[in-house]
Amino acid sequence: MTIKRRKTPSVQIKNLQIGSKHPIAVQSMTNTPTYDVTKTVNQIIELVEAGSELVRITIDTSKSMASVPKIIQQLKAKNIAVPIIGDFHYNGHILLSEFPESAKLLSKYRINPGNVGIDNNFSKMIKIAVKYNKPVRIGVNWGSIDKKLFTKLMTENSKRKNPKTDKKIIYDVMVQSALKNAQKAEALGLPKNKIILSAKMSDVQDVIQVNQMLAKACDYVLHIGLTEAGSSIQGITASSAALGILLEQGIGDTIRISLTPEKNTPRSLEVSTCLALLQSMKFRYFKPSVTSCPGCGRTNSNHFIELADQVKKLIDQNYLKWREKYPGSEKLHIAVMGCIVNGPGESKTADIGISLPGNNENPISPVYIDGHLTHKLNSANLFNDFKTILEKYIQTKFKSQK
Amino acid sequence: MTIKRRKTPSVQIKNLQIGSKHPIAVQSMTNTPTYDVTKTVNQIIELVEAGSELVRITIDTSKSMASVPKIIQQLKAKNIAVPIIGDFHYNGHILLSEFPESAKLLSKYRINPGNVGIDNNFSKMIKIAVKYNKPVRIGVNWGSIDKKLFTKLMTENSKRKNPKTDKKIIYDVMVQSALKNAQKAEALGLPKNKIILSAKMSDVQDVIQVNQMLAKACDYVLHIGLTEAGSSIQGITASSAALGILLEQGIGDTIRISLTPEKNTPRSLEVSTCLALLQSMKFRYFKPSVTSCPGCGRTNSNHFIELADQVKKLIDQNYLKWREKYPGSEKLHIAVMGCIVNGPGESKTADIGISLPGNNENPISPVYIDGHLTHKLNSANLFNDFKTILEKYIQTKFKSQK
Repeated sequence: MTIKRRKTPSVQIKNLQIGSKHPIAVQSMTNTPTYDVTKTVNQIIELVEAGSELVRITIDTSKSMASVPKIIQQLKAKNIAVPIIGDFHYNGHILLSEFPESAKLLSKYRINPGNVGIDNNFSKMIKIAVKYNKPVRIGVNWGSIDKKLFTKLMTENSKRKNPKTDKKIIYDVMVQSALKNAQKAEALGLPKNKIILSAKMSDVQDVIQVNQMLAKACDYVLHIGLTEAGSSIQGITASSAALGILLEQGIGDTIRISLTPEKNTPRSLEVSTCLALLQSMKFRYFKPSVTSCPGCGRTNSNHFIELADQVKKLIDQNYLKWREKYPGSEKLHIAVMGCIVNGPGESKTADIGISLPGNNENPISPVYIDGHLTHKLNSANLFNDFKTILEKYIQTKFKSQK
Repeated sequence: MTIKRRKTPSVQIKNLQIGSKHPIAVQSMTNTPTYDVTKTVNQIIELVEAGSELVRITIDTSKSMASVPKIIQQLKAKNIAVPIIGDFHYNGHILLSEFPESAKLLSKYRINPGNVGIDNNFSKMIKIAVKYNKPVRIGVNWGSIDKKLFTKLMTENSKRKNPKTDKKIIYDVMVQSALKNAQKAEALGLPKNKIILSAKMSDVQDVIQVNQMLAKACDYVLHIGLTEAGSSIQGITASSAALGILLEQGIGDTIRISLTPEKNTPRSLEVSTCLALLQSMKFRYFKPSVTSCPGCGRTNSNHFIELADQVKKLIDQNYLKWREKYPGSEKLHIAVMGCIVNGPGESKTADIGISLPGNNENPISPVYIDGHLTHKLNSANLFNDFKTILEKYIQTKFKSQK
């Protein structure tokens, strides 16, 4: 599959490049108090280990800003070089001026043009970015849009013969706020390849509309996401639909999936959801994928669910090691199927597949490798037998780099 | 938002109509052995209570087919009128012939043209559908495609000057298999408004491509879904992206999200995922929605997460009752936000919203109703106070039907 991407410049963020020539980057944000260095460092590590390629931290107070050098130092000591982005609102111009060491250590600044107040504050932040050669995200949020611009466009609209709907005016405000501030940043000396834009709303259809408008109106690098997606299933489905639709249209160079945390759910769920989305759409590959059927009255559900679960756990425990030792193994496609209906068919088209017997079927599990029947396993030791075959396949198919 | 839908006839399935003039219907499938009547009835009830509007059951053996009258009878005794669909493979022609009572009680037959064997078997099943006036889904699966047709098209392709890729041929087989069999069914007397087509594959990009081709080539009602999406996050993201993209293009009249079950996960997760997807895209409304932010270093995370969680639980416990008593309450939009940045903004645009104080903010939680600040709550009894306001709002805004 060829991936269609809207053309953009490339923005360098520490060791990472973002833009249409580069893979769609995955990012996330901590929810620890930034001044709590230990908690913040630990959560950054959790997010990075889950696959986050940029991590954003809130910088709301002097105490938080003063913690930045300690955070970066502790990460460095643990060999973690992920770009750390400072998220500023209201007082960013003050914090960036008063803490030059922190300003230099952050890899990118996020500015919300809706709440930096008078223009001068925005300019101050951009000038600091220019001075330290830092990229900036101008992040417009529906929940904090530029009220002056909103009032202006609403007033203009009320004078029209055929006024636009309020919703359309809100879209216009979002897009104009992003573009005008980007142009202002360029005028202040921040080059286009140091600017990322985002226009986030909490509704799927809104976020699609507004990003389509923004994508059409400029070639800046775009960060896309729902600003408040909600928790678990709701947040994951809404984000996957919204981002899936935009990415399929070539819109979006870096993504974040914002999930409201739930008890007993790791913060890194937002990262694993990004990875699953990008891989399911074949935009990127992170770890071997498992095609498994939903089961039905035909499948011997317990055996089949257990094996699918065991194979997934095996992958989760080993894919980082495999990816390093056997590059390409992240594209491996495994099938674990539950009966004769689609089992052999799916197993043959996977790189390696196993088709468990359904109810009333011969209790034999055929294994297919590269489309050919190679083994017939019986139920005893099914997982261990399949594991041995799978590991051997990886060792043979992907050239060891060690 | 106006919903664009590809025009189709309407197919009547018991008490439900499916097609472009009707809401996108949610369906699911049991994974209990169909001959185990108690287990199957219980799972059907679980799926229906979660919101499934059609339920499919495997009919693989005489024993399963013989259970159909008992299943329908037990459901009837519990006032459950959901259409029950029989899923047939290989031997459907025999089972439908030998068990006329069951054939009459099922509301729809699903036929897989890839494995009904010789044409005569397909015709036998269609003739029974005509006789009992039943709608049929002709469900083509990538894992069980028509091998004869596949060989034929591959051979034809090999003789082309510029052969298509194998992948393109597979798409052609999927589409032709669905269309040819639908035409055959029509020729046998089954009218177009009794035919539903599906073409399922396990890969997101494949399922998008093949359904776009099918949608363009005909106006039959379409059932869409990934045939094997995998489990949990993987299956939910992949299904939301694939179905989201197709639905946004107006393709799809009924959906199923096929998830591999995991331990401790209810079968009905596949139904709640469908509902969340349709509602997030504003195609349908099932229960009040909660916009809540992901939290960050600024938010007083525990309070905010707890309140969002309590509000969600309140909704889950009450929405069916509210929907019956206060029609329209399913469209209610609630915001539970964690700090000053987007909190008041999002809360004002929701029907009813509460913005909790972030760290270092005044410990007051403003409540906004229809865009206006109406209350300022303090932290003690926050949930109970908000619950009282919310319940009063529902009672006032939505006219009681009782």
